[in-house]
Amino acid sequence: MSEKKIPYKIYLEESEMPKAWYNVRADMKNKPAPLLNPATLEPMTAEELGAVFCDELVKQELDNDNRYIEIPEKIRDFYKMYRPSPLVRAYCLEEKLQTPAKIYYKFEGNNTSGSHKLNSAIAQAYYAKDQGLKGVTTETGAGQWGTALSMACAYLDLDCKVYMVKCSYEQKPFRREVMRTYGVSVTPSPSETTEIGRKILAEHPGTSGSLGCAISEAVEVATHTEGYRYVLGSVLNQVLLHQSVIGVETKTAMDKYGIKPDVIIGCAGGGSNLGGLISPFMGEKLRGEADYQFIAVEPASCPSFTRGVFAYDFCDTGMVCPLAKMYTLGSGFIPSPNHAGGLRYHGMSSVLSQLYHDGYMEARSVEQTEVFEAAERFARVEGILPAPESSHAIKVAIDEAMKCKETGEEKTILFGLTGTGYFDMYAYEKFHDGKMKDYIPSDEDLKAGFDGIPKFPGNM
Amino acid sequence: MSEKKIPYKIYLEESEMPKAWYNVRADMKNKPAPLLNPATLEPMTAEELGAVFCDELVKQELDNDNRYIEIPEKIRDFYKMYRPSPLVRAYCLEEKLQTPAKIYYKFEGNNTSGSHKLNSAIAQAYYAKDQGLKGVTTETGAGQWGTALSMACAYLDLDCKVYMVKCSYEQKPFRREVMRTYGVSVTPSPSETTEIGRKILAEHPGTSGSLGCAISEAVEVATHTEGYRYVLGSVLNQVLLHQSVIGVETKTAMDKYGIKPDVIIGCAGGGSNLGGLISPFMGEKLRGEADYQFIAVEPASCPSFTRGVFAYDFCDTGMVCPLAKMYTLGSGFIPSPNHAGGLRYHGMSSVLSQLYHDGYMEARSVEQTEVFEAAERFARVEGILPAPESSHAIKVAIDEAMKCKETGEEKTILFGLTGTGYFDMYAYEKFHDGKMKDYIPSDEDLKAGFDGIPKFPGNM
Repeated sequence: MSEKKIPYKIYLEESEMPKAWYNVRADMKNKPAPLLNPATLEPMTAEELGAVFCDELVKQELDNDNRYIEIPEKIRDFYKMYRPSPLVRAYCLEEKLQTPAKIYYKFEGNNTSGSHKLNSAIAQAYYAKDQGLKGVTTETGAGQWGTALSMACAYLDLDCKVYMVKCSYEQKPFRREVMRTYGVSVTPSPSETTEIGRKILAEHPGTSGSLGCAISEAVEVATHTEGYRYVLGSVLNQVLLHQSVIGVETKTAMDKYGIKPDVIIGCAGGGSNLGGLISPFMGEKLRGEADYQFIAVEPASCPSFTRGVFAYDFCDTGMVCPLAKMYTLGSGFIPSPNHAGGLRYHGMSSVLSQLYHDGYMEARSVEQTEVFEAAERFARVEGILPAPESSHAIKVAIDEAMKCKETGEEKTILFGLTGTGYFDMYAYEKFHDGKMKDYIPSDEDLKAGFDGIPKFPGNM
Repeated sequence: MSEKKIPYKIYLEESEMPKAWYNVRADMKNKPAPLLNPATLEPMTAEELGAVFCDELVKQELDNDNRYIEIPEKIRDFYKMYRPSPLVRAYCLEEKLQTPAKIYYKFEGNNTSGSHKLNSAIAQAYYAKDQGLKGVTTETGAGQWGTALSMACAYLDLDCKVYMVKCSYEQKPFRREVMRTYGVSVTPSPSETTEIGRKILAEHPGTSGSLGCAISEAVEVATHTEGYRYVLGSVLNQVLLHQSVIGVETKTAMDKYGIKPDVIIGCAGGGSNLGGLISPFMGEKLRGEADYQFIAVEPASCPSFTRGVFAYDFCDTGMVCPLAKMYTLGSGFIPSPNHAGGLRYHGMSSVLSQLYHDGYMEARSVEQTEVFEAAERFARVEGILPAPESSHAIKVAIDEAMKCKETGEEKTILFGLTGTGYFDMYAYEKFHDGKMKDYIPSDEDLKAGFDGIPKFPGNM
C-alpha cells in the first residue's frame, strides 16, 4: 500500500478516462461457448445475428480475440456527462464495523438511470445510429435498463420503443414517467401491438406479463420494422465488453494510488455489472500476472451459479432468442418474489459462466432480509441509499470485512455499488414494517426448471 | 477566458475543498434587519434564541461581522462523503440551443437527500451533538429537508423527530420511507403528540396539515423536551452561511480554470440555495472588486420578490416564530398548487431581501408549465432529471442563452442545479399528460395575504 493519502472519493481526470473497452475473452484460454441457432443447433452466424442486432455489435459479440476495442469519440463524450464514476473509500463504514479491512466501492448510481446500465445503453444506441437505423426496441422489467436506453436515445435523437412488463408498468408508474420524459414510447406488455402479444393476451386474458414475453414482443417489432434493431441490457458478450469501462476506470484509479484489492465482489443477475467490474483484474489473473479473489453474489431465491447447471439454454422464456451456454435454472424457472428485480434472471452471462466453471471465481447466495439489513446499515453511515441489487454485494463485503475483524487481516475489499434505490422504496417499506420474507426454492422447484432445458446430445 | 480546456465536469481535489464558510453579511453595508420578538417587537437576544436553537447556531445567526467561519473537521469529513459537487459545463445544452453562451451549472443533487439541503443539515446536527443535546426536531413538506436531516442525524447518532405535513406524508410515502431508512421518527402533522396539534385537530378535524402547523409542532416538542432543539432548513442567516459552501466551491473551481461568470441564476424559495451559490460572488460585488448580474427565479404562483412587500412578518403560518424583515406575501398567503413544493414559501431570507432591496440582484417569476418544458429539454441533452424547483433556474438560464443567440454575445452563464426530481414524477406525469395548469394569484389574493402582515409603527 502506497503512503499516499487516499481521499474519500477518487475521481479520475477526464484525460485519464478509458479510451478502449477491455475484452476479457481475449485472455480466456477456454472461450465462452458460442450462441446456437435453436433450429439447427449450429453456432449463430454474423448474418443471422445481424437480423436482430446492429452490425458492429454483432462483430463485438463474436470477437474473442481483440483485447482492446476503441471507444468511439461520441460515446466517450457521452461518458463524460456522467463519468468518471467515483471510487469511494468507505472510511465511515470501516469505522462503524471497526474492521482492519480497507473497503472500496465503485459507485455507478450517479446518473438519472440510477445504475451502470447507461454504459452499454449509449454504446448500443450509438452503433444503431451510426448504422443509419431509425430506432431500437427493448424490454424492461424494473425499468433501469429502459431508462438508460431512453436517455441514450434522447441524446442521439434515435427512436426507441420500450416494452415494459405490465405489472411493473402499473406498479412503477414513476419509472415509466422518467422514460416518457426522455421521449420514448413505453408499451405495457403483453400488448395488442404485436402478433405474439395478441396471442398471449388471447390465451391468458388479464395476464400481468413477464420479461420473457416483453423480450418476444421487442424482438418481433425490431425484426418486422424497417430500420429497427433489438438491444439487450445484460447477459451478452457485447454488454460485458461495454461495462468493462467500470473495471478499467477502477483499476486506473487504484493503480494511481497504489491500491491492490484482495477481494472483488459484485452482485450477479445477468452478469453485466460483475463482468464489467472484474474484467481487467480477471485479465491479470488469467495471464498469471496477479491474483484476486472474485465473489459473485446472487439472491438465494434465484441461485443460477450456486444451484444451477452449466448447459445450453434459452435466454428468454418466450424461447425466441438463440441458445446460450451458461449456468441456468431453466428458462421456465419462475423465481419467487424478490425485490431485487435486476437479479431475477434464470441464466448468467456465458463469459462469467465459463470463468466460474473453470474455477476463476466463486459465488455466494444471500437472502433478501439480510441484504436489506446490510443496505440500511450502509445507508446510515455512507449516505447513499443503495438499490436492492447492489446491496447483495454490500452484504458480502460486510461479511468479508467482519471476517477480517476476527482474523485481524488487513484485506483490501472492493465491491461494485451498481445503483441507487430511489424507485425501490416499496421494498424498503416492507422491510421496515417487518413484512419482508425470504424465499429459497426447493429441490422440486429447481427440478421443474431444469426439466425445461433443451435436451440434445452433449447438453446437460 | 483561459485557454485551458474546460472538462465536462470540474471536481475539486479534496485538498481544495473549502475550510471555511463565507459570511456575506460581513460585506453588506446595510446589514439584514434583526429578528424581532413578536411580543416586545425588540430584537431577539441570544438568550431568547437559545431556547429554540443550539448555542453555536445562535452565534452564527447573529454574526454580521466575521467574514469567514471555520468549518469544523467533522463536518468537513461528512462533506467529503458527497462533496465536492461537480461544476458542469453544459456542452450538450449549448450545442442543442446553438448559443454562443457558455453555460455552467453547479449540481447539488448527487446525494441521497437529492438536494443541497444536506450542507446545512449536517452543520446543524453537528452543533446539536457538540452541545451534548439528545436530539433535534424539524418539519418537512416535500421531504428533502427531512431526508437531509435524517441522513445527518444517522451519521452522528443523534435522535431526530420529523413532523411531515400530513398530505405529503400520505402522497409521498417513498420520501417517508427514505427517512425511516435513516432511523428517524416521522409523524404526520397535525398529530396528537403535541398540544397545538391536538388543538388544530379539534378545530379542523380531517385537515391535511400545513407547513406552518408542522413548524409549530416541531418547535413545541423542541422547547418542551429536555435536550432537544429545533432546526430549520432555509430562510435563516445560519442556513445561508452553511450553504455558502456551494458558492465557495464554485468560485474556487471557476478561478482554477480562469472562468468568470457574467450572469448567476438560482431558484428562490426561502433563499438558501440562491444565497449559498451567490455568496462569494456577491461579496466581490459588495466590495467593488467585480460585477455580476444575479437573478433570483421564483414561481409566478408564489412571487415573494416580484410582487411581495418588504416588511417584518411571521416566518410561519402558526406565528410561533420570531418576526423577520423580508419580502413577503404575508404568512397567511396560501400559494396555489404548484409542484415546486420547495418554492412555495410566503417569505424570503432577510439577507437576500436586503440585497434585493438595495439593488444588488434582480428577480423573475416564471410559470410552471414553461418550467417543466425547460426541465424536459434539459434532461434530454444533459442526462440529469432535474427537480421542479431547480428547473426554475434552468428556464431562465435557457432564456438568457437564447438572448445571447440573438445578440451574438458570448456570455458565461452559471446556474444552480439544486437537486433531482426522482420523487416528483407525479408532477412530470401531469405535465406529460397535458394536465398541468399555471396559477397566478390575483391582486385580491395578494391583498388578503398582505392584510395579515403585522401592523406596527414603521412596518409596511
